[in-house]
Amino acid sequence: MKFNVFTQMQYEARSEGTLVLNIHALRTPNQLVLSEELTIDPYLKAEELIAIQGESRLMRVELTEPCSLKITYRALVDNCYELHDFSHLPEALVSQLPATVLHYLNPSRYCQSDKLYRLAHNLFGYITNPFEQVVTLTDWIHQNVQYLSGYSNAQTSAFDTVTEQIGVCRDFAHLGIALCRALTIPARYFTGYAYHLKPADFHACFEAYLGGNWVLFDATKLVPLNGLIKIATGRDAADTAIANIFGDINFTTMEVSCELAEAENFEPFYYEAGGFKGLVYL
Amino acid sequence: MKFNVFTQMQYEARSEGTLVLNIHALRTPNQLVLSEELTIDPYLKAEELIAIQGESRLMRVELTEPCSLKITYRALVDNCYELHDFSHLPEALVSQLPATVLHYLNPSRYCQSDKLYRLAHNLFGYITNPFEQVVTLTDWIHQNVQYLSGYSNAQTSAFDTVTEQIGVCRDFAHLGIALCRALTIPARYFTGYAYHLKPADFHACFEAYLGGNWVLFDATKLVPLNGLIKIATGRDAADTAIANIFGDINFTTMEVSCELAEAENFEPFYYEAGGFKGLVYL
Amino acid sequence: MKFNVFTQMQYEARSEGTLVLNIHALRTPNQLVLSEELTIDPYLKAEELIAIQGESRLMRVELTEPCSLKITYRALVDNCYELHDFSHLPEALVSQLPATVLHYLNPSRYCQSDKLYRLAHNLFGYITNPFEQVVTLTDWIHQNVQYLSGYSNAQTSAFDTVTEQIGVCRDFAHLGIALCRALTIPARYFTGYAYHLKPADFHACFEAYLGGNWVLFDATKLVPLNGLIKIATGRDAADTAIANIFGDINFTTMEVSCELAEAENFEPFYYEAGGFKGLVYL
Amino acid sequence: MKFNVFTQMQYEARSEGTLVLNIHALRTPNQLVLSEELTIDPYLKAEELIAIQGESRLMRVELTEPCSLKITYRALVDNCYELHDFSHLPEALVSQLPATVLHYLNPSRYCQSDKLYRLAHNLFGYITNPFEQVVTLTDWIHQNVQYLSGYSNAQTSAFDTVTEQIGVCRDFAHLGIALCRALTIPARYFTGYAYHLKPADFHACFEAYLGGNWVLFDATKLVPLNGLIKIATGRDAADTAIANIFGDINFTTMEVSCELAEAENFEPFYYEAGGFKGLVYL
Repeated sequence: MKFNVFTQMQYEARSEGTLVLNIHALRTPNQLVLSEELTIDPYLKAEELIAIQGESRLMRVELTEPCSLKITYRALVDNCYELHDFSHLPEALVSQLPATVLHYLNPSRYCQSDKLYRLAHNLFGYITNPFEQVVTLTDWIHQNVQYLSGYSNAQTSAFDTVTEQIGVCRDFAHLGIALCRALTIPARYFTGYAYHLKPADFHACFEAYLGGNWVLFDATKLVPLNGLIKIATGRDAADTAIANIFGDINFTTMEVSCELAEAENFEPFYYEAGGFKGLVYL
Repeated sequence: MKFNVFTQMQYEARSEGTLVLNIHALRTPNQLVLSEELTIDPYLKAEELIAIQGESRLMRVELTEPCSLKITYRALVDNCYELHDFSHLPEALVSQLPATVLHYLNPSRYCQSDKLYRLAHNLFGYITNPFEQVVTLTDWIHQNVQYLSGYSNAQTSAFDTVTEQIGVCRDFAHLGIALCRALTIPARYFTGYAYHLKPADFHACFEAYLGGNWVLFDATKLVPLNGLIKIATGRDAADTAIANIFGDINFTTMEVSCELAEAENFEPFYYEAGGFKGLVYL
Repeated sequence: MKFNVFTQMQYEARSEGTLVLNIHALRTPNQLVLSEELTIDPYLKAEELIAIQGESRLMRVELTEPCSLKITYRALVDNCYELHDFSHLPEALVSQLPATVLHYLNPSRYCQSDKLYRLAHNLFGYITNPFEQVVTLTDWIHQNVQYLSGYSNAQTSAFDTVTEQIGVCRDFAHLGIALCRALTIPARYFTGYAYHLKPADFHACFEAYLGGNWVLFDATKLVPLNGLIKIATGRDAADTAIANIFGDINFTTMEVSCELAEAENFEPFYYEAGGFKGLVYL
Repeated sequence: MKFNVFTQMQYEARSEGTLVLNIHALRTPNQLVLSEELTIDPYLKAEELIAIQGESRLMRVELTEPCSLKITYRALVDNCYELHDFSHLPEALVSQLPATVLHYLNPSRYCQSDKLYRLAHNLFGYITNPFEQVVTLTDWIHQNVQYLSGYSNAQTSAFDTVTEQIGVCRDFAHLGIALCRALTIPARYFTGYAYHLKPADFHACFEAYLGGNWVLFDATKLVPLNGLIKIATGRDAADTAIANIFGDINFTTMEVSCELAEAENFEPFYYEAGGFKGLVYL
């Protein structure tokens, strides 16, 4: 399915400095960036960084003097997903995980899975099918955590959210990841453009490693799972910030959008209760 | 300098399970593993995992039934280091960091550098030479944090230690890393065998990325910097645990040692006050 | 019912200093201290402090020089309790609380009820009878938190325990208190001697203010509710420490016991599922 | 000195509920409330609660139905203070503290002095005069913590602020209290009306118990110490909230002011470097 994605971000720099942006649609075998355009106004030297394991396309922008900066990115992206049937998924075994996935079991800055071990097992340990575990914990987050902005901040972690039970997409994703890892299911953070997200913003959700694939989950249930264009994956928000700012540079405004690029019929896909179809962006 | 390193670890498994061990001396251009021997008693299938970016040599051991397990590792390792002069090191610039190093600026599970930004700048922001900054913050940790076991645990983080001011080598390293990152200096956790560490144990310290190299620092000052054999580096202890245990397996006892393998004169190297020589394991 | 309570505590003082002990059985209209004896060996000046609102009988001991100190307390205490029927208890209303009880709704050091508001309401908000709420949350703690020493410490709070789900009587009590306060039920910490507690130690549980009385609850279910001799109540463990130590004084060993003083038939009382009888020490 | 204090607070109640307000000027031997007026519009039943130990004058307001509520309080208050000379104050001794003051040594919700023990002694342990210790730690807070709203919230504690080093008057006071208690100096939270505070708001600072009196300190240095009208004291903000809300009631707007009521010359008093005069509101 083809989507037009767009963002425009403005910054006010009062000093020289560096911006590391993470807004490009990722290029993967099944997410084709058909066209894209980036403009930096005023013109500044920018450099695309070779990402580790193809998980993001960082762009580093050098500001050599104070300025008002406007960065515009638009792309036409074709995202192909597959639906896998996980109804016969056996219990997750560490012995069968590839080495490149193992570190997604480790706790990270915002996902202190080491502290959630007992809670995760008390709540979800009785379920034997790991796909069903992740669907169930995602539903549990959706039912217990209130989606409301202004109550969490850049330092809020899964350990906070599991008790305070309020937050935004970032907090929902961190909690989902921490619970997965506590259940010995590798999980990673996913940022992207999201079809018709309201209010318009970048979105965050998460992927769990199940049956040899990264399967997408979104405890906010705010957008269809097949309406996401991947920007980056990483351990948590610390790895995948939309922008890392070095210097006296202030973010001022932002626009984001993600629209269908073709007239064809889009069928929003969400997980249904009791279902075993999982969505995989290869 | 050649060292004989040795460890023997015993586990009591009451179920099947998996051990992921991180005890092999790392192979790098300048750390040569001249010989090594691993024995698992009783014999079990073990697999060396291809590590990400050569930062560790994980070994995965499958336990298919309950057993008493004894793992013995010994190696003869030649570690070559260099002393670099950092007296004219310019201020750290994000614009000059390679892409593969950038993520060592991110906060991690035990090193919440995002929370230490103001404290780090209040204490060390006046220093312009980044090498001097790291030497100074290492000294500050050494002077203010009491080295005492039993007061910190597996969940203690740099955010705790900076205030509670008590802990072990792991806590000293986490605090050093968090302070470096808060000062925009990439930093990573280092585990290794340490010459004549008392009481005998694995050691943890940290590396800061300065002038294009990873330079070694140890806020505990318990061992000479040139008496370390590197096992692994990672973001923090979550990435470099000596053992990750999956299943009902209990650690029981451990022995560790690191001795000189040759009669030649070993001159212990520590940073001296006001000096600008930094030790680099290439 | 009459009980013989006993404790002997030993300290090693390496300097002068002050001990504030909180080990005397409290004197209340319904807890009669029939006889008691305190010995300090070697003899030191000790002073009983007039407690705030009769909630504890602090004893301050002055150490004027280094010494080995042995403090022995024994008492014969008659504790009278009542069983109240709470089957028709209306919803708790702040408007009907006496002024002296209001501050037991506030969060305290170990009971951060402000952070547990949503969790408490998600779990127990559907219950209208406040007695049933407290019985249910006490059962929830008992079922979800593992009783095991060595995993929590003097800094562990209800906010930790609600997620880490492991701890000792102190942690169980803190979590019970925090959940009550989050549900607008005043709650306070209770320390005491406990009949046949194994291993022998002081015990901690909590009281909730229901229908005009302080009703006793114990999420550990380790001892019968009618087998407790009250030492002190307070906001949490910070107010009711068995000993506060000022100076270089180390606690070395302790003995505690609580035995029936009469041959009469003792019927252990625990809350039963679905029951509405609450135990009140007046 | 006579001051006119004033506040007007508006609430939007969408349900019945209870407000517990803490806005009345306290009546003490040396703070005389010469006249005061409270209006609740629309008229609602309000009850002044007998406070514990005269530390606050809580007012409980019952809302029996949804409404828009406007509460107006104005008073003419004469606050008398004394300046004491603490140049010869001996070291603080627990043995000489009255029983009613002892619990101000305990850690509380926002002042986890138990975690700051080593830090406090490392920074201020070398000072022998307790008054000088508190002046010095107050200056340290003033120099290291940035006064900026929007970075801390209702859950921010001294343990956060000591590292994050940003906050508002409430956070400055909590950190001051925690450091005092860690140094075995009883300390308590103080809320009040503050002369010409900008932007206009209620103010928070703290009192330390020194030489038998509660001495006032304000690490924000935003207002003169002799320009404060005391509303309440307590362990921390949890005890002295301007308003505790029970029910679906939203705070909407607030005005606060504190002006001189007489033309006489007001000489603002602040602690001067190296001085030993401490301000005491009896």
